[in-house]
Amino acid sequence: MKLNRGVALVGAGMTKFGRHADLSSRELFVEALNKTSASVDRNFDRKMIQALFLGNFTSDLFEHQGHTAPLMADWAGLCPAPATRVEGACASGGLAFRMGVLAIASGLYDVVGVGGYEKMTGLPTPAATDALACASDTSYEGIPGATFPGLYAMMAVAHMRKYGTKWDMLAKISLKNHRNGSINPLAQFNKSIEDIAKGKGFTDVMQFLNDPKSNPVVAWPLRLFDCSPISDGAAAAILVAEEKAKEFTDTPVYITGTGQGSASMGLHDREEFTTLPSAMEASRQAYKMAGVSPKEIQIAEVHDCFTIAELIATEDLGFFQRGEGGKAAAEGRTAREGDRPINTSGGLKCKGHPVGASGVGQIVEHFEQLRGTAGGRQIPDVELSLTHNVGGSGATAVVHIFSTKKP
Amino acid sequence: MKLNRGVALVGAGMTKFGRHADLSSRELFVEALNKTSASVDRNFDRKMIQALFLGNFTSDLFEHQGHTAPLMADWAGLCPAPATRVEGACASGGLAFRMGVLAIASGLYDVVGVGGYEKMTGLPTPAATDALACASDTSYEGIPGATFPGLYAMMAVAHMRKYGTKWDMLAKISLKNHRNGSINPLAQFNKSIEDIAKGKGFTDVMQFLNDPKSNPVVAWPLRLFDCSPISDGAAAAILVAEEKAKEFTDTPVYITGTGQGSASMGLHDREEFTTLPSAMEASRQAYKMAGVSPKEIQIAEVHDCFTIAELIATEDLGFFQRGEGGKAAAEGRTAREGDRPINTSGGLKCKGHPVGASGVGQIVEHFEQLRGTAGGRQIPDVELSLTHNVGGSGATAVVHIFSTKKP
Repeated sequence: MKLNRGVALVGAGMTKFGRHADLSSRELFVEALNKTSASVDRNFDRKMIQALFLGNFTSDLFEHQGHTAPLMADWAGLCPAPATRVEGACASGGLAFRMGVLAIASGLYDVVGVGGYEKMTGLPTPAATDALACASDTSYEGIPGATFPGLYAMMAVAHMRKYGTKWDMLAKISLKNHRNGSINPLAQFNKSIEDIAKGKGFTDVMQFLNDPKSNPVVAWPLRLFDCSPISDGAAAAILVAEEKAKEFTDTPVYITGTGQGSASMGLHDREEFTTLPSAMEASRQAYKMAGVSPKEIQIAEVHDCFTIAELIATEDLGFFQRGEGGKAAAEGRTAREGDRPINTSGGLKCKGHPVGASGVGQIVEHFEQLRGTAGGRQIPDVELSLTHNVGGSGATAVVHIFSTKKP
Repeated sequence: MKLNRGVALVGAGMTKFGRHADLSSRELFVEALNKTSASVDRNFDRKMIQALFLGNFTSDLFEHQGHTAPLMADWAGLCPAPATRVEGACASGGLAFRMGVLAIASGLYDVVGVGGYEKMTGLPTPAATDALACASDTSYEGIPGATFPGLYAMMAVAHMRKYGTKWDMLAKISLKNHRNGSINPLAQFNKSIEDIAKGKGFTDVMQFLNDPKSNPVVAWPLRLFDCSPISDGAAAAILVAEEKAKEFTDTPVYITGTGQGSASMGLHDREEFTTLPSAMEASRQAYKMAGVSPKEIQIAEVHDCFTIAELIATEDLGFFQRGEGGKAAAEGRTAREGDRPINTSGGLKCKGHPVGASGVGQIVEHFEQLRGTAGGRQIPDVELSLTHNVGGSGATAVVHIFSTKKP
C-alpha cells in the first residue's frame, strides 16, 4: 500500500472548543477555516481550495440539518468546489482528513481543504447522549439502553479484570490531560483538576476525585472526570501535493502514514474488550506505510473519549505492552515530561470533544508541535508524531503519522 | 485534472427498490452486495474488497442509526477493511462511487467496494418528508415550511415563466419513465401510467393525469406523478484498477470522467432557478476528463426526483438547448426509441428513490446497458454513457462518464 503522490500539511486551525451558544455551526466552521487560512505561511488564498472534505457526525440529530458539506463550503466561499461530508461517528474528522490525503494522491487535486465540526450543546444532555448512541449498534445496544459511558465502562471492567488495572491509573490520565489542557487556550476547560479541587476546598486531589459528590460515578467504574465533555467546535486543515508544499511554507508537515480499519459495531460481537481491532489494523497500515515502529513515535494524540480509551490506545498503538498502559500512565510516562507524551493538547477529555471536529483538532495540535509553535505545551524537537481517532466503541479507527522530514 | 490511475467497473447489483417492511437496512445492503459479487464474471471473492465507501443520506433520522459504513461492512463480512460513509443527501451514492474512484487512483487500493442504501418507509410520510428536508437549508427553508416538492415546484414555475414550458411536457417525462420502469423487474413500480389509468377506468392517459383525484397537486405545478416515491433499497458496485480489470471480466466498463460541484444550499441564494450550477460544474469537469462532448453521450441516467429535475438536467448536461428540454421530452427524443434515451431504468420516478442508493442504482443500469445485459430495456450498441446524481435542490451534483473502451 503506497500512495501515488506524497501529501503535506501546510495549514491548520480551530475554534475554541466548548459551549458556543451564540454561534451557529456555520459560523464556527468559517472561523476555523479563517484561522486555518491565516496559518499558511505564504502564497495561499482560500480560492485555491479545489475540494473540501468535511467530518461531521450527526448534525442530522443535533441540528436537524444534513448535507452539511456544501452548506459549509457555501458559507466559507468555496463553491463551486466539490464539498463532501464524511461520517464515521467520532472518527469523522480523521476520516475527512484521510479522504483529503487520498484525493491529492489520486492526482485530481493539488490543494484540498479538510475540516470537521459538531454543534452539540443545543440539545439537553440526555438527548445528546441519545444522539451519540447512534454511533453504536442502535438495535442491539442503544435501544436496550447501553449508551457510550456504559460501553466504555465494560471495556474498563474487562481491562481491570484481565490486567489488574486500577481506577487510580485512569484518574492519572484525566489529571494529566487537564494539566495539558489548562495551558491550551483553545481547550474547553482551562483548569487543572488540582486547581478545580483546590477551588472546592480539597487539598488532596485524589481525595477530590474519590469524593462521590465531586466526581460521581457515570457508569461504574467510570466517573465524571473519566468522561470527555459535550462540546461545540470546528477545526480545519490545508493539504497540498508534496511537491507544492514549499510554495506555501518552509516547514511543511508530511503525512507519511495513513491507516483505517473497521470492526463490528456491537461489543457483543467482539471476542475481546481490552483492545480495538480496528485501531490495531489502522496502526498496522500506518506504521507500514511510514516505515516506522511505535518506538520511534515521539508524541501522539489519541482518542480519549474516556480515560480507559486512552489507556487501551497506548497499548493498541504499541507504545506499551498489553496490560502496561495503566502503569505507564500512573508513572507519568505519558505526561509532557515523560518519555512518550500523549495528548499534549489536553485530549478530548480537557480540550473538548465536538465529535466531527475532534480528529482534525488532534492534527491541529501536531501541526503546531512539529513546527515548534505549541507554546507552553511544546515538546522539544518533535519530528515524528501520530494521531489516533476512533468512531463509537471502535467500529472505525483511523491513524495518521506525521513527519517534519520529506519521506 | 487527471487521475493518476485508470479505474474500471467490473460488478454492480441492487435489490428491488420499493417497500421492504420485513427487511432491515443491513439485510438490504447484504443482498445488494451478494448480487454485486455474483455479477463479477470471474476470479472474484468479496474478501478481495480492500475498502468500502457507502452512500447513505440520513439513517440517523430514518432509523436512529449513524456510523453505518462499518455496520454494513461487518454484516457483509468485510471487516477489518476500512468502511467510510459519504453523505451528500440524494447524491450520497454518486459521491461514494466517486470516492471509490479516487481511492483506486490514489494507488492505495486495487479493489474497492462501493454501495448505497436507504430505508425510508419505516417513517410515516410526513416524518419522511421532514427528514428529507434536512437536505435543504433547514434554518431558512425547512423550518419556514419549504419541503422538497415546494422547492422543485419553484424551479418548475421559473422554467415555465422563462421558457414557456408546459406541465404537459413534465407529464411526458413521467409517462416515459414509467414505461421504462414497467419492464425493469427491480423497479418499485412495474406498471406504465397507461396501464394504471386503464385500471382506474380511464381510456385517455392524459385525462387520468389531469384528473385532480387521480393525480392530485402536491406543490403546484407538480402533481403526484411528477414526484419520485419514498423507497427502501440498496445498490453496490465493484471498482478495480484499470490494469486489473481483465482479470475479472472480458467486458469491463471504464470510468472515463468524474466531476463534482457544489452550490448554495438555499434557493434564495441562487441567481437563477432554471439550472443547477453544481451540475453545470460537475458535468464540465467530467466531460473535460473524458474528452467527450454532450453530443457523443448515447444514454444518460439523470436525477429525476421530480419531473422538472429531469428536464433541467437534460439542459444542464448540454443534451438540449436551454428551454428546449420540455419540447424534447414531449417529442419523445428521450424515450428508449428516441435519439437520446434518458432514464432507461425508469429513473427515480418509477424505479424508486431510496436516497443513498439512487446514485449507485443509476450505475447498475449503465453497467448492464454497456455490457448489453439490460434485457427489454437494452439500447443497442451503447458504448458511452453518463450518470447525473443531485443532492437536495442542487447544493451537490456528481457526474460520471462510462465507456466500454479503455481510455
